[in-house]
Amino acid sequence: MSGKLYFEDFYIGQRFDSVTSAKVTAVEIKEFGQKYDPQPFHLDEGAGEGSFFGGLAASGWLTAAIVMRLRVQSISVAGGMIGAGVEEMRWTLPVRPGDVIRLKTEVVGVRRSQTRIDYGIVCARSIAYNQCHEMVMRNTVNFLAPVLRLDPR
Amino acid sequence: MSGKLYFEDFYIGQRFDSVTSAKVTAVEIKEFGQKYDPQPFHLDEGAGEGSFFGGLAASGWLTAAIVMRLRVQSISVAGGMIGAGVEEMRWTLPVRPGDVIRLKTEVVGVRRSQTRIDYGIVCARSIAYNQCHEMVMRNTVNFLAPVLRLDPR
Repeated sequence: MSGKLYFEDFYIGQRFDSVTSAKVTAVEIKEFGQKYDPQPFHLDEGAGEGSFFGGLAASGWLTAAIVMRLRVQSISVAGGMIGAGVEEMRWTLPVRPGDVIRLKTEVVGVRRSQTRIDYGIVCARSIAYNQCHEMVMRNTVNFLAPVLRLDPR
Repeated sequence: MSGKLYFEDFYIGQRFDSVTSAKVTAVEIKEFGQKYDPQPFHLDEGAGEGSFFGGLAASGWLTAAIVMRLRVQSISVAGGMIGAGVEEMRWTLPVRPGDVIRLKTEVVGVRRSQTRIDYGIVCARSIAYNQCHEMVMRNTVNFLAPVLRLDPR
């Protein structure tokens, strides 16, 4: 889909596949872990082996950040994709060094904003898969989309 | 609170204040934006001024990552804080360069895992504040905590 999307362009059931995939490296896992989730299983292969994860694993918040990038790249909202909250997020499998993540997103709700008459709220469910087609994360998020034609009220 | 916490140590109403605060810089906002949320208002002051945010603003996913670090530093779970999902997350005010973020977390639920008898699930609500004591983000997350004493069943 080309061009910038306004609220009127979104509809329930609409699907967006990620236009790129993201390869996750051990370096990225450790860098993100050191900055934002400094726990042994996100920092060191050896420590990861003795942990719940049985090896080095990405912080779930790194996976969530990668998912945001894949979503931004695949859904071009006029004025930008402005988050209006997360309804649910689940990490269903660890993300490991070398994993390649891609995303499928479906619109599950559209409604006008109660507080900003010039915006609507799009609710979208994203599922992130690894290279083995296994779901590693899902989330349901709301984002704003500007209304193209304001109705007289 | 010192020592590593097991499932039995958690109770509804228990509170944890962040042991440190986090100062957010323009450099960090732009670096995170370039990597994970490449939109003009997260990358450039001038572009931010013409946007919904009226200035450079942190990606909500950067704020969420900072919140994770503050939570990990303030709640020391035996074996590490392993996320079991997010129930809700809201970004209530933009986070700007120079903002100083601190966190208050309250336990709102404790239950044994249905699938792993050696773990319990702690549900915690965190509120992130800036230096003006304004709420910038809240989220409700689940994390695993190992059971210290397994009951005979």
